[in-house]
Amino acid sequence: MRILGIDPGLATLGWGVIEAEGSRVRLIQYGTLDTYPRDTFPTRLGSLYTGVKGLLDTFKPEEIAFEELFFSKNITTGIQVAGARGVALAACQSYTDRLFEYTPMQIKQALTGYGNAEKKQMQQMVRMRLGLNEIPRPDDAADAVACAITHAQAGRMREQFRIK
Amino acid sequence: MRILGIDPGLATLGWGVIEAEGSRVRLIQYGTLDTYPRDTFPTRLGSLYTGVKGLLDTFKPEEIAFEELFFSKNITTGIQVAGARGVALAACQSYTDRLFEYTPMQIKQALTGYGNAEKKQMQQMVRMRLGLNEIPRPDDAADAVACAITHAQAGRMREQFRIK
Repeated sequence: MRILGIDPGLATLGWGVIEAEGSRVRLIQYGTLDTYPRDTFPTRLGSLYTGVKGLLDTFKPEEIAFEELFFSKNITTGIQVAGARGVALAACQSYTDRLFEYTPMQIKQALTGYGNAEKKQMQQMVRMRLGLNEIPRPDDAADAVACAITHAQAGRMREQFRIK
Repeated sequence: MRILGIDPGLATLGWGVIEAEGSRVRLIQYGTLDTYPRDTFPTRLGSLYTGVKGLLDTFKPEEIAFEELFFSKNITTGIQVAGARGVALAACQSYTDRLFEYTPMQIKQALTGYGNAEKKQMQQMVRMRLGLNEIPRPDDAADAVACAITHAQAGRMREQFRIK
């Protein structure tokens, strides 16, 4: 099954596509969608919408796993990131309703067996699980790949992580 | 000039279309886009995206005026409303970059001359300005119409209210 992982953000939206057979996983591709502070907020949202649609068209994932927002204490940033997540969700929803969400802690737990693992540890596990020579970069892309792997591992339990 | 006013929200997005010649205004139509709690959050966002695109296709506004979010203290609600606003902005941006935003206080000030006016007072001013027999209902639609009128009145000052 092809899984798209998404780590939503306004400046950088991380994404990673894997092919999973049960909990065996293979990397297809990863990267980021970037938007620029010189552009207006609506322009950046529009570009994320188009970018996510492009990923769906290109990789045709069967299921999509979002990393849950870490909610910023800065309310302006929070509104912006929540807007970016909303746009990514709307773009995905137009393609499939197989949308799931995992917290950073659930992702760390799934990858390392420990919910408070260090980011570096988790990234090393991502590298090993996919048989890569290097850790995926930047962090947002590695996080998105980790989220996709978490979803693959969730197996039949995954239905409880559907976005309601 | 045709102006679309939008009062963003997840359950109810209010909208109103006016035709403005300077600060003289005429009502074209108003209403709400409604989404339902029985549907998932992504489904509701997808339906708002499609609904806003529908409004743009139907009314072909030249400029769009958003009412700024009143940010809820409930963080879950806040994330959801910010998501809905993001989706509405992305849909509008795909149509025009003439997007503006006014705070509730600016709207009250523009309509009644008093930033802390009561909602009822403002709605009466909307009714009178448009020569209607009744106040537009529901409140979200009346707010959206008020926002469009505020934008019409802003005249050359409006550029400072562009969404950045």
